[in-house]
Amino acid sequence: MTILAVGSVALDTVETPFGQAEEALGGAAVYFSYAASFFNHVRLVGVIGEDFPEEHLDLLKRRDIDLSGLERARGATFRWKGRYDYDLNEAHTLDTQLNVFETFAPKIPTSFKDSEFVFLANIQPGLQLQVAEQVSAPRIIACDTMNFWIEGAYDQLRRTLQKVDILIINDAEARELAREPSLVKAARQILNWGPETLVVKRGEYGVLMFNQHSVFSAPAYPLEDVYDPTGAGDTFAGGFMGYLSTVEEINDASIRQAIVFGSTLASFNVEDFSLGRMKTLKMQDILDRFAEFKLLSHFEEVEA
Amino acid sequence: MTILAVGSVALDTVETPFGQAEEALGGAAVYFSYAASFFNHVRLVGVIGEDFPEEHLDLLKRRDIDLSGLERARGATFRWKGRYDYDLNEAHTLDTQLNVFETFAPKIPTSFKDSEFVFLANIQPGLQLQVAEQVSAPRIIACDTMNFWIEGAYDQLRRTLQKVDILIINDAEARELAREPSLVKAARQILNWGPETLVVKRGEYGVLMFNQHSVFSAPAYPLEDVYDPTGAGDTFAGGFMGYLSTVEEINDASIRQAIVFGSTLASFNVEDFSLGRMKTLKMQDILDRFAEFKLLSHFEEVEA
Repeated sequence: MTILAVGSVALDTVETPFGQAEEALGGAAVYFSYAASFFNHVRLVGVIGEDFPEEHLDLLKRRDIDLSGLERARGATFRWKGRYDYDLNEAHTLDTQLNVFETFAPKIPTSFKDSEFVFLANIQPGLQLQVAEQVSAPRIIACDTMNFWIEGAYDQLRRTLQKVDILIINDAEARELAREPSLVKAARQILNWGPETLVVKRGEYGVLMFNQHSVFSAPAYPLEDVYDPTGAGDTFAGGFMGYLSTVEEINDASIRQAIVFGSTLASFNVEDFSLGRMKTLKMQDILDRFAEFKLLSHFEEVEA
Repeated sequence: MTILAVGSVALDTVETPFGQAEEALGGAAVYFSYAASFFNHVRLVGVIGEDFPEEHLDLLKRRDIDLSGLERARGATFRWKGRYDYDLNEAHTLDTQLNVFETFAPKIPTSFKDSEFVFLANIQPGLQLQVAEQVSAPRIIACDTMNFWIEGAYDQLRRTLQKVDILIINDAEARELAREPSLVKAARQILNWGPETLVVKRGEYGVLMFNQHSVFSAPAYPLEDVYDPTGAGDTFAGGFMGYLSTVEEINDASIRQAIVFGSTLASFNVEDFSLGRMKTLKMQDILDRFAEFKLLSHFEEVEA
């Protein structure tokens, strides 16, 4: 099984109450790919500028991430600068320089077209649709988006959703997309538009998953301190898709497990800036924390 | 086993996006007692004015709630008026008339002093301590409080906490009480001050429980619409203490189940104004929804 990730590769400057990172490796496709690489072979499609440090590429290659779809364009790499205050659920964007990412049009190498698990990170919905149409026999297409596209490219996004199996967004995005303040009603609406599964990320409050038959609520791992929440959502998606690409059958039970693996990976990612914690992470750490999630949410049934 | 509840009895006027209720039965001790009455015998200590409608007393008596500690004082009953917007996690208080509740000094009838499960609803911490000292052999003393006392009666509250086994507050209160933005660190701090167990209510995001040995995360039941969140916290506490009063051993496992029963009761309470939904609730409804909570949070382990 192979996983294809399409999205941003960035240099992030981030400030939180716990410190800061300058021009650190970031971007949705990077966070996703790194997390997914613990489970399976990952192919990355994105764009970087001439100034992108070689050491970052080396880091990704060491995880066996195939970078043959990573275009190097003339100009500077996408840069994002943000700050988080004590409410780490909310990012304050201080500066965005799209640079080479502004005209990013994902080109899927021929050798990537047989990818079975496809993650369309947050980019223009029209581009997401083009990618979805270029892969030949996908088993699962998962997709993220944001308020900017919900507000500015709503119709396009609705067309893209028709090709999407699993939509992975946060609670505010779900409400805005469905134009419905009740999350449960919003979920039901969105499930009529294409995706069979809706995964709603709620930061420190965990994840809700909706499909036609069931609802699943996964806790977040209670950390003493969240050092840097940047990339948590894409790391979640990477752990989620990574695990899903290893199971025999994709069903309610394996999707629930995948959500807990996603939450597990995300809980590690926020323990340090950039990919600092991920770099030292081992598969055994992931399995141990998965088991902790089980204890965290366990309670016994009662006699009826 | 008998349960003692001490706290407010009120007439609430509430407005939400779904409608309104005028001078409806409310108050922390009422919501608590009604929920707990599904599990065990409840004794209520509080105060009402001369204007308190007899039908409300009849409703409580039909649940076998012992009202011999409910004082009727000269003057008007405590009234609260509030509004909730679409963010139902936040109450906007429009008017508070303490009336007879202003000088409330709980008198515990001699026949109530052998109560084994004691809930100190949100009142002045000094009064809570007096109650705690009047019961002869309590098994569990649980306690709620609010920002007003944390800010205005901090030292008194800390003294009260030394007598409390289980503190049941919301996440903002836990952070403010410990003067610590990290909830996990705040919890550890509070557990050094007396309570063996801290239960943190997070509204639509469920409940976190901390003790010296474990953390438990319970989901909230995903409702299409929350009609009126008034009393949800006290209803939670009622279901929690009610169930706990029925178990053979109070330990991590039974406290986790009690939290899910509390969440179950609260999920019903918010489906209508005042005690509207509670009035028609049956024990089988509670057991059915408890089972739904199990499905909601269930995922399978993986091979390590």
